[in-house]
Amino acid sequence: MKVEIIAHTPDPEKLIASAAKLCYSQSGVEGIMEGLTPEKTEKFIDMLVSMGHASPFEHATFTFGIEGVSRAVLAQITRHRIASFSVQSQRYVNKESFTYIMPPEIEAVPEAKEEFLRAMEEDRAHYIRLAAILKEKHKARMVKEGMDGNAAEKAAEKLAFEDARSVLPNACDTKIVMTMNVRSLYNFFHLRCCTRAQWEIRALATEMLRKVKAIAPTLFRLSGPPCVSGPCPEGKMSCGRAKEMRELFGNM
Amino acid sequence: MKVEIIAHTPDPEKLIASAAKLCYSQSGVEGIMEGLTPEKTEKFIDMLVSMGHASPFEHATFTFGIEGVSRAVLAQITRHRIASFSVQSQRYVNKESFTYIMPPEIEAVPEAKEEFLRAMEEDRAHYIRLAAILKEKHKARMVKEGMDGNAAEKAAEKLAFEDARSVLPNACDTKIVMTMNVRSLYNFFHLRCCTRAQWEIRALATEMLRKVKAIAPTLFRLSGPPCVSGPCPEGKMSCGRAKEMRELFGNM
Amino acid sequence: MKVEIIAHTPDPEKLIASAAKLCYSQSGVEGIMEGLTPEKTEKFIDMLVSMGHASPFEHATFTFGIEGVSRAVLAQITRHRIASFSVQSQRYVNKESFTYIMPPEIEAVPEAKEEFLRAMEEDRAHYIRLAAILKEKHKARMVKEGMDGNAAEKAAEKLAFEDARSVLPNACDTKIVMTMNVRSLYNFFHLRCCTRAQWEIRALATEMLRKVKAIAPTLFRLSGPPCVSGPCPEGKMSCGRAKEMRELFGNM
Amino acid sequence: MKVEIIAHTPDPEKLIASAAKLCYSQSGVEGIMEGLTPEKTEKFIDMLVSMGHASPFEHATFTFGIEGVSRAVLAQITRHRIASFSVQSQRYVNKESFTYIMPPEIEAVPEAKEEFLRAMEEDRAHYIRLAAILKEKHKARMVKEGMDGNAAEKAAEKLAFEDARSVLPNACDTKIVMTMNVRSLYNFFHLRCCTRAQWEIRALATEMLRKVKAIAPTLFRLSGPPCVSGPCPEGKMSCGRAKEMRELFGNM
Repeated sequence: MKVEIIAHTPDPEKLIASAAKLCYSQSGVEGIMEGLTPEKTEKFIDMLVSMGHASPFEHATFTFGIEGVSRAVLAQITRHRIASFSVQSQRYVNKESFTYIMPPEIEAVPEAKEEFLRAMEEDRAHYIRLAAILKEKHKARMVKEGMDGNAAEKAAEKLAFEDARSVLPNACDTKIVMTMNVRSLYNFFHLRCCTRAQWEIRALATEMLRKVKAIAPTLFRLSGPPCVSGPCPEGKMSCGRAKEMRELFGNM
Repeated sequence: MKVEIIAHTPDPEKLIASAAKLCYSQSGVEGIMEGLTPEKTEKFIDMLVSMGHASPFEHATFTFGIEGVSRAVLAQITRHRIASFSVQSQRYVNKESFTYIMPPEIEAVPEAKEEFLRAMEEDRAHYIRLAAILKEKHKARMVKEGMDGNAAEKAAEKLAFEDARSVLPNACDTKIVMTMNVRSLYNFFHLRCCTRAQWEIRALATEMLRKVKAIAPTLFRLSGPPCVSGPCPEGKMSCGRAKEMRELFGNM
Repeated sequence: MKVEIIAHTPDPEKLIASAAKLCYSQSGVEGIMEGLTPEKTEKFIDMLVSMGHASPFEHATFTFGIEGVSRAVLAQITRHRIASFSVQSQRYVNKESFTYIMPPEIEAVPEAKEEFLRAMEEDRAHYIRLAAILKEKHKARMVKEGMDGNAAEKAAEKLAFEDARSVLPNACDTKIVMTMNVRSLYNFFHLRCCTRAQWEIRALATEMLRKVKAIAPTLFRLSGPPCVSGPCPEGKMSCGRAKEMRELFGNM
Repeated sequence: MKVEIIAHTPDPEKLIASAAKLCYSQSGVEGIMEGLTPEKTEKFIDMLVSMGHASPFEHATFTFGIEGVSRAVLAQITRHRIASFSVQSQRYVNKESFTYIMPPEIEAVPEAKEEFLRAMEEDRAHYIRLAAILKEKHKARMVKEGMDGNAAEKAAEKLAFEDARSVLPNACDTKIVMTMNVRSLYNFFHLRCCTRAQWEIRALATEMLRKVKAIAPTLFRLSGPPCVSGPCPEGKMSCGRAKEMRELFGNM
């Protein structure tokens, strides 16, 4: 898994503090950022968090480049609707060299690992053969319809990928560019850094949090699963690891 | 593929016409629907469409029950963010009896069909074996940690499904409950009934349109790909089948 | 203030329970609602609430007809973005007979009440005079440009309202048709039924809650300000009336 | 009216081109921006626009600081829901020195202008008197309940503003910080730069467009009302000024 921040709103903490300040003061737009020293910004942001005044956190966005995650994670991540996604297309891209994401629980058991690896290589072989058969068929039709051989080759390939992908597994890798604003990220980390989340999206969310925290430590100081900043909402279903979580995310 | 409308706003056309009427008149909320004969409702809706006054169309929603579609279609459908989804979970449900959606282009070529069917049955076998191995391992650990045998059996099974699903293919079936408002449906049909859309989501969108049209024919009279109501926006990339499309969707 | 539910998803509790059931079971779309007795539905919904599994609550929507609320409330209510609005237009509608919403704190002080009433009647007079002046001017221009007198009369009137409204007060009445799904309503009631909310939107939210609770008592049993279902999140800023609130909303 | 861009995604055109490139290629996240010369970026963006592939345009956002616009414009602008807002609060801020936005049609007629100005000054006087009466009353109660005089003064003031604002006019000025992504801006400019939009929001949208175009000319080259890039969708309701608009926005 590789996670990079490829773009973000410059000076996100100061922007958020400025926007919030506007709501409560006579101060104008000009010079809205003036006088916001790092200390004042921090104090302001802490106050917003404690008041639950969440909307100013929407003004700053982070864009992540993500690769080496599975299509299974993609299915979960795209359920977050206050976010923007660009995803590597299995309709347009040849996936014969796909890599795969092996669940740690599978990797830990030699018998399971062997089963999984065999599944991956069989899927790859099926994909390659299906793509070849379908491409041949589409190309023949296109040439018959009068298309030039080279153009037909290219066009037939795309059509072949589109259907051959049906045998690709959930574990197949994908690439994502995702943009979320800070408010949406708070919700994402809340749900997906929790020990009850599925392992891969938890690993992704934790890595994303580490990266944004390096850029905006005040904004994300209390981010993570609910137990980092308050009581566990799961009640008796709780994992009971709140202390461990607070240390993990607190020292990040 | 099975598509059912399992719920919808009652009298959607009248509701939309009423809401729009409120914007332009002194009339109050009481009796807002009075005097809206079917003829007046139709005229009002046609006027809204022609004016591009789209927001009143959001007041009515349709909820679809969908089954026998692939996880590949799920990935596309959940990219529509002005919509609500409940999806059968591969983390919680045993998918050893999964059915699969075979692309028509594959079914049409005996050699491709055979390849595809072999892929499906191998995936099923891998899934069953992986689930069994993982369940055994989780159960052993849980019993060792002091859990009762029956409880451990159940809990271990869920953990096993969660990881075993990584070998399930894109073609694997899923079930979806989806709610969209009429404005979002317009956009969905616009993009997904087009001949340039991928075959399965096009089949799904077309079936959804057929179903809503039976309930609200005025609302959806001009719905479908762009060529049903105007010029094709694809320019020289156009499929050139606008006449055929207008007949198909016009006579639906 | 008048609040009516003018449309809603039929059988909203059963629909939500059905959608959630699909996520966790092998059961198909056909017969998805079968076997969901009122008791089972209630139990299922309580479980969803306690698990924080919020997305199925989006499938059911309620549409409210609202009148006799102020433009000040409109400004607050339209800040809720997961909602659909149709609003009486001050550009298209003659507001010379506008009614106004008087804050109770003003009504309680004779001196303040008198000041307020004078403000309203002066605004009305300015509006009427401005509309008349502007209409005359627009009409004259239109007739000069060759438009028929009657058509000019009508067209000029609209243009006159559009600018004359600039003198209308925040207290001026408006009419709204608003649709929200249940998840968005939960958030709305959470924020707007709280004693810290502004009086008018609190009165509106409370009336809306009373109306939806009559239709779907299980869904909204714990709805209202946060203190109805848990501790007050305001900390030392709390109003200290949690017990009173629990009784008020509990007996609604 | 003052409009400033107070923050934006750095290098927005390159980011959007990179995200789109990921969808169609094997290329990874690392080095995703490499090789994207200004010429290639421009070509890529033009291709996305012509294909109607709109989602990559969501990755870049612009944050505007806006002041000297009316509450009437605020009501329109906040109807755009794919946007984030922070607005100067009339509940928390003393508006006795409010400025006002006078419609040009009113300013052009001496009689109308005089009427308007009188309305503004009367509203100001009512506001000041109401705030004073309400503050006195709240303060008296608070002191009686045991609050310290200075604290009561401050708390009473806020409560007084909250109700006194009910006499403030639509023309009253406000301040806004607003963030929109590029896709949402396209829609905003499409609707609000059109001659059929209300004058003030049109002026605001036009100024916003001028500002973003200076930063990202390729992205916004065809932005503006629909007639800038294609036929007018209003049909016989068209203003007939398409040529003028194309020049205005083309030379911006």
